[in-house]
Amino acid sequence: VSDLFWAGDERAGTAMSGSALLASLVRVEAAWLQTLVATGIAPASADDDLSGLVGDPDLGALAGAAEAGGNPVIPLVDLLRTRVEPRNGDAARWLHRGLTSQDVMDTALVCCLRDAIDRILSDVHDQVTSLCRLADRHRGTLRVGRTLTQHAVPTTFGLTAADWLAGVLDAAADLARVRDSLPVQAGGAAGTWAATTELAALAGAAEPAGRARQLAAELADRLGLAPAAPWHLNRRTVTRAADALVAVVDAWGRIANDVLLAVRPELAELAEGAATGRGRSSTMPHKENPVLSVLVRRAAISAPMLAAHLHAAAAQMADQRPDGAWHAEWAPLRTLVRLAVTAGSQTSELLAGLGIHEDRMATRVAGSLDVLMAEQRSVRDLFGGDTEQPSVRFSEREPGPSGYLGANDLLIDEVLAAADRFLKEHR
Amino acid sequence: VSDLFWAGDERAGTAMSGSALLASLVRVEAAWLQTLVATGIAPASADDDLSGLVGDPDLGALAGAAEAGGNPVIPLVDLLRTRVEPRNGDAARWLHRGLTSQDVMDTALVCCLRDAIDRILSDVHDQVTSLCRLADRHRGTLRVGRTLTQHAVPTTFGLTAADWLAGVLDAAADLARVRDSLPVQAGGAAGTWAATTELAALAGAAEPAGRARQLAAELADRLGLAPAAPWHLNRRTVTRAADALVAVVDAWGRIANDVLLAVRPELAELAEGAATGRGRSSTMPHKENPVLSVLVRRAAISAPMLAAHLHAAAAQMADQRPDGAWHAEWAPLRTLVRLAVTAGSQTSELLAGLGIHEDRMATRVAGSLDVLMAEQRSVRDLFGGDTEQPSVRFSEREPGPSGYLGANDLLIDEVLAAADRFLKEHR
Amino acid sequence: VSDLFWAGDERAGTAMSGSALLASLVRVEAAWLQTLVATGIAPASADDDLSGLVGDPDLGALAGAAEAGGNPVIPLVDLLRTRVEPRNGDAARWLHRGLTSQDVMDTALVCCLRDAIDRILSDVHDQVTSLCRLADRHRGTLRVGRTLTQHAVPTTFGLTAADWLAGVLDAAADLARVRDSLPVQAGGAAGTWAATTELAALAGAAEPAGRARQLAAELADRLGLAPAAPWHLNRRTVTRAADALVAVVDAWGRIANDVLLAVRPELAELAEGAATGRGRSSTMPHKENPVLSVLVRRAAISAPMLAAHLHAAAAQMADQRPDGAWHAEWAPLRTLVRLAVTAGSQTSELLAGLGIHEDRMATRVAGSLDVLMAEQRSVRDLFGGDTEQPSVRFSEREPGPSGYLGANDLLIDEVLAAADRFLKEHR
Amino acid sequence: VSDLFWAGDERAGTAMSGSALLASLVRVEAAWLQTLVATGIAPASADDDLSGLVGDPDLGALAGAAEAGGNPVIPLVDLLRTRVEPRNGDAARWLHRGLTSQDVMDTALVCCLRDAIDRILSDVHDQVTSLCRLADRHRGTLRVGRTLTQHAVPTTFGLTAADWLAGVLDAAADLARVRDSLPVQAGGAAGTWAATTELAALAGAAEPAGRARQLAAELADRLGLAPAAPWHLNRRTVTRAADALVAVVDAWGRIANDVLLAVRPELAELAEGAATGRGRSSTMPHKENPVLSVLVRRAAISAPMLAAHLHAAAAQMADQRPDGAWHAEWAPLRTLVRLAVTAGSQTSELLAGLGIHEDRMATRVAGSLDVLMAEQRSVRDLFGGDTEQPSVRFSEREPGPSGYLGANDLLIDEVLAAADRFLKEHR
Repeated sequence: VSDLFWAGDERAGTAMSGSALLASLVRVEAAWLQTLVATGIAPASADDDLSGLVGDPDLGALAGAAEAGGNPVIPLVDLLRTRVEPRNGDAARWLHRGLTSQDVMDTALVCCLRDAIDRILSDVHDQVTSLCRLADRHRGTLRVGRTLTQHAVPTTFGLTAADWLAGVLDAAADLARVRDSLPVQAGGAAGTWAATTELAALAGAAEPAGRARQLAAELADRLGLAPAAPWHLNRRTVTRAADALVAVVDAWGRIANDVLLAVRPELAELAEGAATGRGRSSTMPHKENPVLSVLVRRAAISAPMLAAHLHAAAAQMADQRPDGAWHAEWAPLRTLVRLAVTAGSQTSELLAGLGIHEDRMATRVAGSLDVLMAEQRSVRDLFGGDTEQPSVRFSEREPGPSGYLGANDLLIDEVLAAADRFLKEHR
Repeated sequence: VSDLFWAGDERAGTAMSGSALLASLVRVEAAWLQTLVATGIAPASADDDLSGLVGDPDLGALAGAAEAGGNPVIPLVDLLRTRVEPRNGDAARWLHRGLTSQDVMDTALVCCLRDAIDRILSDVHDQVTSLCRLADRHRGTLRVGRTLTQHAVPTTFGLTAADWLAGVLDAAADLARVRDSLPVQAGGAAGTWAATTELAALAGAAEPAGRARQLAAELADRLGLAPAAPWHLNRRTVTRAADALVAVVDAWGRIANDVLLAVRPELAELAEGAATGRGRSSTMPHKENPVLSVLVRRAAISAPMLAAHLHAAAAQMADQRPDGAWHAEWAPLRTLVRLAVTAGSQTSELLAGLGIHEDRMATRVAGSLDVLMAEQRSVRDLFGGDTEQPSVRFSEREPGPSGYLGANDLLIDEVLAAADRFLKEHR
Repeated sequence: VSDLFWAGDERAGTAMSGSALLASLVRVEAAWLQTLVATGIAPASADDDLSGLVGDPDLGALAGAAEAGGNPVIPLVDLLRTRVEPRNGDAARWLHRGLTSQDVMDTALVCCLRDAIDRILSDVHDQVTSLCRLADRHRGTLRVGRTLTQHAVPTTFGLTAADWLAGVLDAAADLARVRDSLPVQAGGAAGTWAATTELAALAGAAEPAGRARQLAAELADRLGLAPAAPWHLNRRTVTRAADALVAVVDAWGRIANDVLLAVRPELAELAEGAATGRGRSSTMPHKENPVLSVLVRRAAISAPMLAAHLHAAAAQMADQRPDGAWHAEWAPLRTLVRLAVTAGSQTSELLAGLGIHEDRMATRVAGSLDVLMAEQRSVRDLFGGDTEQPSVRFSEREPGPSGYLGANDLLIDEVLAAADRFLKEHR
Repeated sequence: VSDLFWAGDERAGTAMSGSALLASLVRVEAAWLQTLVATGIAPASADDDLSGLVGDPDLGALAGAAEAGGNPVIPLVDLLRTRVEPRNGDAARWLHRGLTSQDVMDTALVCCLRDAIDRILSDVHDQVTSLCRLADRHRGTLRVGRTLTQHAVPTTFGLTAADWLAGVLDAAADLARVRDSLPVQAGGAAGTWAATTELAALAGAAEPAGRARQLAAELADRLGLAPAAPWHLNRRTVTRAADALVAVVDAWGRIANDVLLAVRPELAELAEGAATGRGRSSTMPHKENPVLSVLVRRAAISAPMLAAHLHAAAAQMADQRPDGAWHAEWAPLRTLVRLAVTAGSQTSELLAGLGIHEDRMATRVAGSLDVLMAEQRSVRDLFGGDTEQPSVRFSEREPGPSGYLGANDLLIDEVLAAADRFLKEHR
């Protein structure tokens, strides 16, 4: 059930939901069990994919039981052992051996995170496509450039769209980098690989420590993650993901801010698309509220504090495994992820349906021409002030005051080229 | 279902859950409809308590439909109208008239908030009782006072408990004040009472504006809230509650920090109670982790950012109703409330079961006596240094190095007296 | 020298500057020395007001020396002793006796805080005066009410001003409460009053512990603070002040947001006063930027994180005196205080010089009349829809579409009455 | 003068001080003027390095004058023009032409940021050296591994040091990446390169827009920055730097937390070096407080909110240049930078002087052996439980219970290899 306190939450679907976390936890335990068998630590008879043993109906009981040990892995391992025992006693015996609960939780969260980032990057893909179209189509759409709320110099809506695009691309690049280096966690009780080394030695491995490293690497491989030394206390993986998520929400928020200013009736330069039924008021039947922008802006107000939360937790780590700081990560990470997935989807829809009122933009420029040309005049004064006409044509298509926009196409083309590279790299 | 990402969340029960919010929204609509009827605005035939029309099975659909208008009130009003129509057409017609969706949402959240604060104050009550007992019983339990991690001067565990108590009382006083002044929201579309004034005029009221005020006051009365002018943009009600909630979590967090230091095996001066099964490790059967303290500390790391979130939203308000800042409030307020209710319950249990190892405390004091008496010696040096014995007896019951604790009982007694006043004021 | 990174910082003058802190630290030490003498603990010969011994030229050396012990009190006490020794050996001997450095630092910060709050309340006073004038004068100035950026229903600029006023009053009430209960800190090394009790006993006091309490109370009295038990670990004093400071900045920020929207050329309903030279651009000579609003909005974006910082510190307290959390308070508290003093002064100036373009407001209302009357029409439809004219006159002075604003005067009058009470209570 | 509210601030020296910012602003204006001349836009006679015209004595006046336009660049340009006029009228005329104040401020801040990051990376270099030594020297120093405050399994102090090192390396890698891609800002009034294109056209350039791009690139080159399209609204440059700064402070904070636990008298496994005079108490002459760790921990509590501040500003950007969000960046960025430089220096000193009490570590392990071997026993039980001795030798040098640490050397060696790569890459 989606969140009544966060309109649009259903867009996030199962992204880092309780259900997704549970499935991911089981998947990690299963991949580990298979790793133990495949590397000859556990007997072949212990092989089991653990499928069908635990599922959504168990969520309530597991969440309730999580408090006793401080995390949900402990009761989950009990539950899996109890349920697999009848069909495979060796699986019950070997399950989870060599791991600590933080290994399973961290790795499962990382898996959920990867799925969510994929969702976001897919939305970024759509946004990039929309923005490329807007930037290119409106490279000649003159618009008032506003600074500190006041009319400043001319610009184009195409350049505005290109600038939105540049922001999205820059943030998404970090997110993609995070996605491609998400590490497995498999350190054992105190991040020493001691239990796995011992297991390997008992199983007769020639180089037990090397085998322990191999176990972690094989788990990573089965889950599509990067192999890694234990990072129980070094939480940059978490904060780096959070920073990148916030950054992409920042970029969307800036778009929403611009739209919310431009849809004001006094400007009416942009319009949220004629989304069916969206933007209704409970009392004023005539109103069409820019709901998508409102909700994206909401997310942008919210996200920074969630990353701060994760940094605050990271900075409180201590000992070999921490006394609260780790536990403080899961909920804000979940909230940030769902917020970002939702806002990404809303931004995609917003951009796909954005209405551009070129006429209003043109009228505004014409009405403000004297003000908008002031900088240009002062530049020309430098050269004697006798040049009566703007010296630079903005575009062959556009006569008039556009002379002052000579670099417009160049700037737009650079962003379009960057977008092209991004689209090629990311599918 | 409680939250798999926040161990112990089930302690919060329905506190500001989706289900509780929905019930509260319906309750506000019902109280308003009854107010319209009772004040003669709506006909008697419109009277309806709206009970049984909408409930938990509708949560998913309402959450999903909330996005179209940006909040869940709009689809809820539609749903209520559709469902009450067959049994009471006038109720369907009059429902929600004069309110805007923010009125209903704000008032419903305030009702949920009040219920949650009551839960917290009840836990505070238990904590105060536990702490009074600890402070009184251990006023003679000598303990090393530690500053900047190092042994400093002697103190007692009773004074530590009294200090924890003082922190809880101070924070709870703000929370109780917030609880007693929670206001109704009933301003209409732009906080002008225009629709209700118009309704009153059309219904023949002599002083329509006064009648509009009366409507808001009567709604407040029906819901047990304070009457208030519209506060759509002035969000101190929300931030004040958030500040008070964080402050009480800060106070619990400080207790948890102290416990987490004292349960370290090297100190072993305190112990989390022999809670059944609590503190298990997934790999180390012998361990007894101080799980309650860990989870309370987790909450204390988390809470500050949530209040900052609400202030950030408050600072972004604009126009007659805002474009995202209001929508950004609900989720962090919910999260903060549930976090606080959970942490309050955990702290109550922690304090009720706290084990005090007086012997370890005494041994530590004895072993560190020379260090602990340094300040006292330097004080006595001021008077010539010839006084060989500590001049102030700590307590008749306690011989030994306790001379230096003369104000201990006085400080403890002051806090106990304050606790007594608190317990009397709050039931 | 004011801060190059925070335009307008010089408005804050010495509010919680290094210089003010140093003066305050010396003042606390002096008041304590006088307290020791006055209560008969120290000999009369130790009396000294410590004036002229330490000052701004020592700031650099003290700041540098602060690191060795973690705070500036330790080198300050050394310096005072060295410098007072030649003129008064007993003062050098008795100086600081019974206090710990946290006592001096906390109390000095509280004194600085009080001075700063007085500055802010003085600005609030001016703002209240300006806003009362605006609310009263413009109670008939019709204006478009905007919700979620769109035209909604009519309101008046007077009601907008009254709503700004309500926000300021609500926040300032908390701030005034904080100001009137700022406590002294005088707990000794571990908050036990042990050293002062010992001193009292050695000096022959009948009830040494009671005398220790009296010493703290007398120090409070000399500094105009509230007497208090030690609060080394219970930081609600700090967080309560921070919360109140942020809340008042939130209220100003909301005003700035509204102004920044209304000064946009497309609305032009408000204008920042013709402040001499304010709002210049480095490249566009014609521009008049709404600089005061911009800078107030800047403060409103900034403040929430500073209070979160102080709560995060409060939640990390442990032991009898903490290992970093206390040290983390000073800088953000200073920054928050200066930010608030500056923003308060800027808001006062903004409001005093605010230009109101009634004609533009009226034109906008006229142009949007059909939209603005939609809610009223739907209300009247409830009563049969046959009432052709708005039934409620807004004001005798204002013909036209104002019927829908019947409660306007009532709402404004209530806020004006509250403002009147505030002005009477606070000078 | 260093900051009385932040002990140790003088370590940051001029890093992003007002003085450094002013020098950097002048440097940017000078580099721009030279760029205009070198590219043939301005006449050769306009060439001037602007040296000696403005300096620290102007700081107060400039800070005071910054408010009128919202930033210090506007009064600085006036001042430079006034002062250069007598010696070079053409320089006065051409100064700043084509730039907007945000260009100069952003670029100057980026230059300050680069210098500060260099300072930090130099300290990281020292830390890496210290930590490599500790990790290698103590790879055989057995120590109790603690999880959730309780004894868990054995580890070594070498592995702890290696884990600290891994955290520092991971965070520093991001910081180094940020440093190497810091971009110039040179977009003109609305980020359109319009003025520079116009200038180029008037100066007879064949491709004026291309020349505008070249101007920005040449400015970047003169300042050692990366060329870039205008990023007035896309603030990832700022937030990415802030995120990386916080991450490195998180890594140091975690070290400080571990030290603060280990220097407790009950553990006494580590000791802050015998720093001269450090750690004094104002009342307890015997105390040696772990001041460096305390102050680093303080920084770690503080940093996350500062990055959140910068993200919150980034998310509030709008229009072609923003109305407050940009202005909100400078102070928290400055504070974060100075905090990080200071904490980095303190961490370097802490690590260089860290005392390791191997005997206490060994005693603790011996005393807790039964507990520490529990996981190992449970692992061996899996294989029948008949293996009486730990099967894996920890190290030839260390007999006894070390069998369980077989991967210790491997994990340490991996981090040492990573450190080696880092040291080679970064000088």
